[in-house]
Amino acid sequence: MITSITQIRARYAETDQMGIVYHGNYFTWFEIARIQLLDELNISYKKLEKQNYLIPVLEANAQFKKPTYFDDLITVKTSIKTPPSVKFRVDYEILRNNELCTTGYTLHTFINKKGIPIRPPKEFIEKINAFFKKK
Amino acid sequence: MITSITQIRARYAETDQMGIVYHGNYFTWFEIARIQLLDELNISYKKLEKQNYLIPVLEANAQFKKPTYFDDLITVKTSIKTPPSVKFRVDYEILRNNELCTTGYTLHTFINKKGIPIRPPKEFIEKINAFFKKK
Amino acid sequence: MITSITQIRARYAETDQMGIVYHGNYFTWFEIARIQLLDELNISYKKLEKQNYLIPVLEANAQFKKPTYFDDLITVKTSIKTPPSVKFRVDYEILRNNELCTTGYTLHTFINKKGIPIRPPKEFIEKINAFFKKK
Amino acid sequence: MITSITQIRARYAETDQMGIVYHGNYFTWFEIARIQLLDELNISYKKLEKQNYLIPVLEANAQFKKPTYFDDLITVKTSIKTPPSVKFRVDYEILRNNELCTTGYTLHTFINKKGIPIRPPKEFIEKINAFFKKK
Repeated sequence: MITSITQIRARYAETDQMGIVYHGNYFTWFEIARIQLLDELNISYKKLEKQNYLIPVLEANAQFKKPTYFDDLITVKTSIKTPPSVKFRVDYEILRNNELCTTGYTLHTFINKKGIPIRPPKEFIEKINAFFKKK
Repeated sequence: MITSITQIRARYAETDQMGIVYHGNYFTWFEIARIQLLDELNISYKKLEKQNYLIPVLEANAQFKKPTYFDDLITVKTSIKTPPSVKFRVDYEILRNNELCTTGYTLHTFINKKGIPIRPPKEFIEKINAFFKKK
Repeated sequence: MITSITQIRARYAETDQMGIVYHGNYFTWFEIARIQLLDELNISYKKLEKQNYLIPVLEANAQFKKPTYFDDLITVKTSIKTPPSVKFRVDYEILRNNELCTTGYTLHTFINKKGIPIRPPKEFIEKINAFFKKK
Repeated sequence: MITSITQIRARYAETDQMGIVYHGNYFTWFEIARIQLLDELNISYKKLEKQNYLIPVLEANAQFKKPTYFDDLITVKTSIKTPPSVKFRVDYEILRNNELCTTGYTLHTFINKKGIPIRPPKEFIEKINAFFKKK
């Protein structure tokens, strides 16, 4: 399992008139955490896109258990639990003060800029697989 | 089954650098469609909130099959397929030119402004149930 | 003067915990109105971008006089008051029930996809100028 | 002059199809920086709101000189240049690699939750004024 921890401060702009963080914004937090997990594997999402690899979201899911509020210090625990094949899944836990507030996952694949499904770059596969072999 | 059709024009601000509508924004489209479905049942979400009823999202899910683009005229087909109990679920289909691009659902419950789960207002239950009885 | 009227329904997602539409979202409303003004001149912003013309925002300004709320039916009065030269300016008035809530403007220029300033396409100049000559 | 430095990583969700950070999102960055400036003066915006003080935006302005991109490490230099009276103004400079990309300002006042203009809390005035006297 590959894991990563990301800290996010909840923004005022992210709240809605219910006085809590708007549910749609959690998917942005998932993305920030996902990109950081890749960064920690030395995989730059920015560079991937420049090399004509896009990683669109095929599916996104979130279960909201407890709200979070403006100025909260949010912890996102991110993990890839199974070696990627054509698709890969990332799981997320959103916590505030060690309390689990939201869980979710996203499912991804690789396409090129024309929208054609392609294999992930060798480097990506190697870095990810190296991690799973280690265990 | 209760159904509703909503038309949305994809905004420039809703795109990302992949050149498509950012995945997180579909949950806002779902919400617009959900609120319109309630409007068509003569249930004003704005009024519900003023009467101390909040309808938070417990779960949100979207499956992205095809991208949508800036300026696309989007159709959202919204439906409530089963009579609400403590929770209720709303289903969504996002289409462009009759082509299904995204499907999704959200799960909801009623709480008051203190966050305490409460029964939906009588009026809400009656209007929704009336619809299911009709059929 | 070229003018246009756009109607927008304030979205729940656009509110913040102050219970009003978040100030940053007015710039998205300005954009929707600006694109509609161009549409009414038979200038498709989408097509312009495909032809390698981008119209970035050089400056954006808004003066917030009265708040707007979720579900409000917003009217945006958009106008181009002077013939465009290298730059062009668009002015906006945001009204709710004929009450002026926000005024603002944006300043624009034309660049190509490499970021190089370029002349606007002939068609754009002709359509805009035709309008100013008419008057 | 009161000054503060804030670091922000540009999010993927903040880009648009022009491949740059969407202009409307700079106002969210201004807000993050403004709240941090207050934090550094030991003024919690969150606490102010709980004490029934709101600080809405009366005016917002941004001049976009150079674009910023996904994953850029952004520096926001924030300053209050004149002692607040009924209104107060905050100025911003957005830099990437020491290059000035955007400048802007926001103008604010204090209201209570009913929307009535009120004096800022004593603590706020004292902390701000103390700073200007020091100099």
